[in-house]
Amino acid sequence: MDQQLIFTNDTIPAIQKWVATVKPSTLFIVCDENTASRVGESILTALPQAQIITIGAGDKHKDLVSVSQIWEQMSANGGTRRSAVINAGGGMITDIGGFAAATFKRGVRFLNLPTTLLGAVDAAVGGKTGFNFNGLKNEIGAFAPADAVVISTRYFSTLPSEELLSGYAEMIKHGLISSREMFIQLLDFNISHADLDRLLPLLEENVMVKKHVVDVDPKEQGLRKALNLGHTPGHAFEAWALHRERPVPHGYAVAWGLVVDLILSHLRWGFPSEDLHLLASYVKAHYATPCITCDDYPELLEYMRHDKKNARVGEINFTLLAAPGDLRLDSLVPDDDIRAALDIFRDLTE
Amino acid sequence: MDQQLIFTNDTIPAIQKWVATVKPSTLFIVCDENTASRVGESILTALPQAQIITIGAGDKHKDLVSVSQIWEQMSANGGTRRSAVINAGGGMITDIGGFAAATFKRGVRFLNLPTTLLGAVDAAVGGKTGFNFNGLKNEIGAFAPADAVVISTRYFSTLPSEELLSGYAEMIKHGLISSREMFIQLLDFNISHADLDRLLPLLEENVMVKKHVVDVDPKEQGLRKALNLGHTPGHAFEAWALHRERPVPHGYAVAWGLVVDLILSHLRWGFPSEDLHLLASYVKAHYATPCITCDDYPELLEYMRHDKKNARVGEINFTLLAAPGDLRLDSLVPDDDIRAALDIFRDLTE
Repeated sequence: MDQQLIFTNDTIPAIQKWVATVKPSTLFIVCDENTASRVGESILTALPQAQIITIGAGDKHKDLVSVSQIWEQMSANGGTRRSAVINAGGGMITDIGGFAAATFKRGVRFLNLPTTLLGAVDAAVGGKTGFNFNGLKNEIGAFAPADAVVISTRYFSTLPSEELLSGYAEMIKHGLISSREMFIQLLDFNISHADLDRLLPLLEENVMVKKHVVDVDPKEQGLRKALNLGHTPGHAFEAWALHRERPVPHGYAVAWGLVVDLILSHLRWGFPSEDLHLLASYVKAHYATPCITCDDYPELLEYMRHDKKNARVGEINFTLLAAPGDLRLDSLVPDDDIRAALDIFRDLTE
Repeated sequence: MDQQLIFTNDTIPAIQKWVATVKPSTLFIVCDENTASRVGESILTALPQAQIITIGAGDKHKDLVSVSQIWEQMSANGGTRRSAVINAGGGMITDIGGFAAATFKRGVRFLNLPTTLLGAVDAAVGGKTGFNFNGLKNEIGAFAPADAVVISTRYFSTLPSEELLSGYAEMIKHGLISSREMFIQLLDFNISHADLDRLLPLLEENVMVKKHVVDVDPKEQGLRKALNLGHTPGHAFEAWALHRERPVPHGYAVAWGLVVDLILSHLRWGFPSEDLHLLASYVKAHYATPCITCDDYPELLEYMRHDKKNARVGEINFTLLAAPGDLRLDSLVPDDDIRAALDIFRDLTE
């Protein structure tokens, strides 16, 4: 996928340079209510020819109404096939703005400027765009890579610590599927009191892992399954918490899910016990624990089975590891092993 | 572009074979009010697992409401990433159904079954999908090739002769950009009293011309401009007629536009006079004439300039030919030559 990744905290000059290369006929900046004043205005100062399009903030506005709003404003304000779009915001903005750009006049060029760690590490790279429809997440969308992604840590200082922790769980996942060295380096960094200048090089290395996976498998047919590490139990924890009306951030659930997947990796493929314990301590220190009991196991298993639609009764398909960087895709795990792993998970995190 | 083209009047077995290969989890047939009973039902008889989605007929329904209707019905009736869609109708259905399929769950496989000549020769091949938005034609869309296109002449017998003539003008255009042999062969066929069995092999050869152009230049950056032959004056005739509240079918305007473009080709690049006269006679016999006077020239020139947004005052950019099959893309023509060509056009067709 031909996508330019620019890692810098001097975001505005990087964007100006891109605009100078693209020479768009008209330039739009897609923001939400939060990023319009905080980020959009500073881009507008540097690129006064641009027009800001502001949509509602949050996942509930990731819908057809917002997409239509973007299309309408582009169409009514001089949008052509040679226009360009800058998406400045979290994953919601890069997803929906990317979709609008990819379909306006059958596609105009766009740049993503993620303003959250989760957005930087996950949503802004890889070409998945879309919006929620009919009550379903990302029901409508397209595979359309941004022309360029400008990745910085400069917008993170105003984020709630929960958001940073959430994004960091995805970074740990990328470390685990990449190498022991990267994994250990990530656990040596204290995300709860994060030094944002030190975070940028870690983020750079990390995003390149995702980029590599996506380049090899743009349409999610093989290697991209690696990115599911931690997510089968993670989604189960998320659904379980939501069902109790005590929702947890996605990244917290993924952090817990990573511990469960490493336990399963240890049981099934001999994943090193030392590395499992290192992760469990880090997760316990920064993400606390969901406090499950064995009464919750049937429900959690049910969610995992539902997450993997083609799972057979009695076993569920996981992405596991024999060691950091050594993938075991499509590992079938019997229900008994999952229950055993949940027991160990409680021992390690409570 | 990896697109399977199947030329046959045994359409149903061809569709069945495709479905057997794709093995979709659910199968949808997108039709309009006209093709649902005439074509959709016959597919449903052969493939009873399918579900028909019917939208309003005509260009006025090529809108976001219809796209949402298709998305909603797919989403509510078991649509997954492994679903497939059959678009059965004219260019409007293959455009809008193609877009809905290309964006549902970030893209499912789809087959086009064009039921009009214009749709077969033009819209169904080449990957352009989309719908009208904000009063603009195809304002929103995507480049997304159908998995397969089943091309037949069997649905044409119930079409008004106007529609056949309209599609045939595009076929003549493809003949002209391809070779003298193909061009002459097309003029030897009487489209006003068409033998549909004889039309199929002509159509096959013809669609392959468009497929070649699109394969070489999928995103309209170079060779695809060849397909604009006849269209700069054609769009002007269309707008001129509409302005007088006497609209003409698109293909009629293209037929007239082809004559104008061959006159310009003769004046500018020495296009053979004999071939120009052959085309003019055919167009006069089958498409009559727009009956313009020299008072209409300023308006027609204005439309042509508007059609080419980057035209400079005093000259307009055309796709021309030095001979059938010998393209001269981006030919700049002074306004005086266009006026002279319109004089000759009136002489040849009135």
